[in-house]
Amino acid sequence: MRSYFGAEEIGYLLEELSSFSMTTGKSGVTRLAFGEADETAHRFLAEKIASLGLNVSRDAVGNIFARLPGWDRSLPAVGTGSHIDTVPSGGLYDGTLGVIGGLYSLLQYRPGELRRDLELVVFRGEESSRFGFSCIGSKILTGHGDVKKWRENTDDNGLNVFQAMAQCGYAVNQLASCELADQRYSAFVELHIEQGRVLENEEKAIGIVHGIAAPTRYRVTVTGCADHSGATPMYQRHDALVASAMIINDIHHAACKEIIYGTVGTVGKLDVFPNAMNVIPGLVKFYVDIRGIDPVSIQRVAERLNDSVGKTARENDVEISLELVAAESPVPLDNAICNVIENVALEQGVSYRRMMSGAGHDAMYMAGKYPTAMIFAPSKNGISHHPDEYTSAQEIITAANVLKQTLAQLANAQ
Amino acid sequence: MRSYFGAEEIGYLLEELSSFSMTTGKSGVTRLAFGEADETAHRFLAEKIASLGLNVSRDAVGNIFARLPGWDRSLPAVGTGSHIDTVPSGGLYDGTLGVIGGLYSLLQYRPGELRRDLELVVFRGEESSRFGFSCIGSKILTGHGDVKKWRENTDDNGLNVFQAMAQCGYAVNQLASCELADQRYSAFVELHIEQGRVLENEEKAIGIVHGIAAPTRYRVTVTGCADHSGATPMYQRHDALVASAMIINDIHHAACKEIIYGTVGTVGKLDVFPNAMNVIPGLVKFYVDIRGIDPVSIQRVAERLNDSVGKTARENDVEISLELVAAESPVPLDNAICNVIENVALEQGVSYRRMMSGAGHDAMYMAGKYPTAMIFAPSKNGISHHPDEYTSAQEIITAANVLKQTLAQLANAQ
Repeated sequence: MRSYFGAEEIGYLLEELSSFSMTTGKSGVTRLAFGEADETAHRFLAEKIASLGLNVSRDAVGNIFARLPGWDRSLPAVGTGSHIDTVPSGGLYDGTLGVIGGLYSLLQYRPGELRRDLELVVFRGEESSRFGFSCIGSKILTGHGDVKKWRENTDDNGLNVFQAMAQCGYAVNQLASCELADQRYSAFVELHIEQGRVLENEEKAIGIVHGIAAPTRYRVTVTGCADHSGATPMYQRHDALVASAMIINDIHHAACKEIIYGTVGTVGKLDVFPNAMNVIPGLVKFYVDIRGIDPVSIQRVAERLNDSVGKTARENDVEISLELVAAESPVPLDNAICNVIENVALEQGVSYRRMMSGAGHDAMYMAGKYPTAMIFAPSKNGISHHPDEYTSAQEIITAANVLKQTLAQLANAQ
Repeated sequence: MRSYFGAEEIGYLLEELSSFSMTTGKSGVTRLAFGEADETAHRFLAEKIASLGLNVSRDAVGNIFARLPGWDRSLPAVGTGSHIDTVPSGGLYDGTLGVIGGLYSLLQYRPGELRRDLELVVFRGEESSRFGFSCIGSKILTGHGDVKKWRENTDDNGLNVFQAMAQCGYAVNQLASCELADQRYSAFVELHIEQGRVLENEEKAIGIVHGIAAPTRYRVTVTGCADHSGATPMYQRHDALVASAMIINDIHHAACKEIIYGTVGTVGKLDVFPNAMNVIPGLVKFYVDIRGIDPVSIQRVAERLNDSVGKTARENDVEISLELVAAESPVPLDNAICNVIENVALEQGVSYRRMMSGAGHDAMYMAGKYPTAMIFAPSKNGISHHPDEYTSAQEIITAANVLKQTLAQLANAQ
């Protein structure tokens, strides 16, 4: 039995999912990949989707699939979907909007109404917050899982992703069985919030995403000497935090010089040891996240980081190691699907602009296997990965209806 | 019954005390003030001192007193002592050397051999690592306890010092009963490691400390906005860590300009929120520790910090609060006691130099009530507050014998 699922139900389900969280209220939503809150949310969502009348299945690592049958089941389906895991103290919309928007779209059609099947995918572990690498579910589905490297990356409690999956009851020796067939989808469309201010500034209702910037990431370890803060003269110090501060400033300036290319550079995670007021920091570990759509611009920032590390180590009498932990290439998306989205927007009188995505998404990996594009909804003040993340109900239903119609046109294609 | 306690026993007891620790081996000694390891060490030490034949008592907050009677018990005693709590992953010698050196000194004399009593004090909670303020025991003994302010400062688990004391079984409503009588000591001498490289660089066996630098401390809170690291252009950021890095550099440069005055400036504790690789830091909290012996020079660094905060807030579109959490004055020590130490060093053929202490010590507070001075033993490479902290057995016994003879001369004075 199919249930009614309209604009109001999108809002209800967004709210309901936000209750599955390690934090509440002003501290936002915290569903770290394969953590308890995340796992419980996935199990709830799978049951919820089934109760709404769709066929639901889960693979060996917990990715959820929900299918609306078309009238010609011999053809590849049209896919849509996103993720519901979050960063620590994140918002309600990042990822989750695309999942619920996709669910809404499927539920606007009757079984057999469209030519091809529509399939909703809920990808596991898109955020890199817990294990230091992103898009775990979409990488596994597209054959990009890196078992050896993933095993070496652990969370703050020393668990790697496979141990975390096992805690959730998944059969982690069956990763290969999760890989999707090449003919599974004729097209894939991910709806997501923009996580930037471009749509808001230009007063556009949706973004049609034709390419995704990819992160180049470094782990920086600064080793100095943990001396007494009162008894060590300034000229005898090996201060790992002063050295780190110089590198952080250099990265900031290097990225600012690339503003016209859209390249950004961020130090988001930094830990000081021993982290006591009266001890000169002897060790600082931090990560550098560089992103952009212009590989040459990204490379210039990376070279300036490298120069900064050498200069800072010499000037501060500290040792600095710089390890490349990710170097992904920008991903172009499918122009034909972008044109379908554009036509739908024109038909529906929805304002739009074509744009790149600065953030990474599961669509990056789906794009390597299937024609793929994305639709962005506006983010208020560009805020994301934060409890204040917000997209209005009106903005959501506008974007969801563009997705709904786009999926139908793609599903009815020969 | 008195037991023999010579140079070798100093080494044994240093080793034995190092086993009371939350960390071991390469991670050094961790006995945070009023923590379990610290409390157990104090109870062990009190029993050990009693077993060696001295009269031992403990006050309402756990400060230990051990007394060797002189032949004229109507006179004020001569005091010595230090502390045995440590920073996280500290060394074996900071504080502990002065306690064991004092114990060694008392045990070299028979009861009634000297005119005045000698008294060893083991002060509680000298390190500020746990609660953000230092010299808890010596402040209480000299009437400098600040119940209201101390109640507001908590450790990483949200406990304030009174709650921690209560966990150790102390009667924290009897602080006033701990204050020492004005006539308790005619003189007080603290032996301590230098925690700097001055003695090593100048090849001197001991330092005769005629003044102690005091810390001026600020809590800095930088509030930006936790946006997505990939989707937020450089010109739309409110990055709390980039702003913090600028202030850290400014403090470093400001302190370097004051090198000839001996002033130092340090950021030792810094925490980033939410501290995830793909989120622009929305909040950074850190402490600034400025120390020196020249109040005008300290003031110049504080003013540059203030200027940096204003400029950095404007340049980075962040809010920054700067709270003064400590502003203590440098403490001159007693010149007459310094002369006694100098004469003993000359008699014993021990090389020495007069010097200031860059670090704070319990002697700062004792100096407000009793004529007080300090003796420094060298620190290898100037390293302190670190597992590599080291003073050789030969350096220790040389300094301890200067202390022993100094206490005897002070005890035999009219």
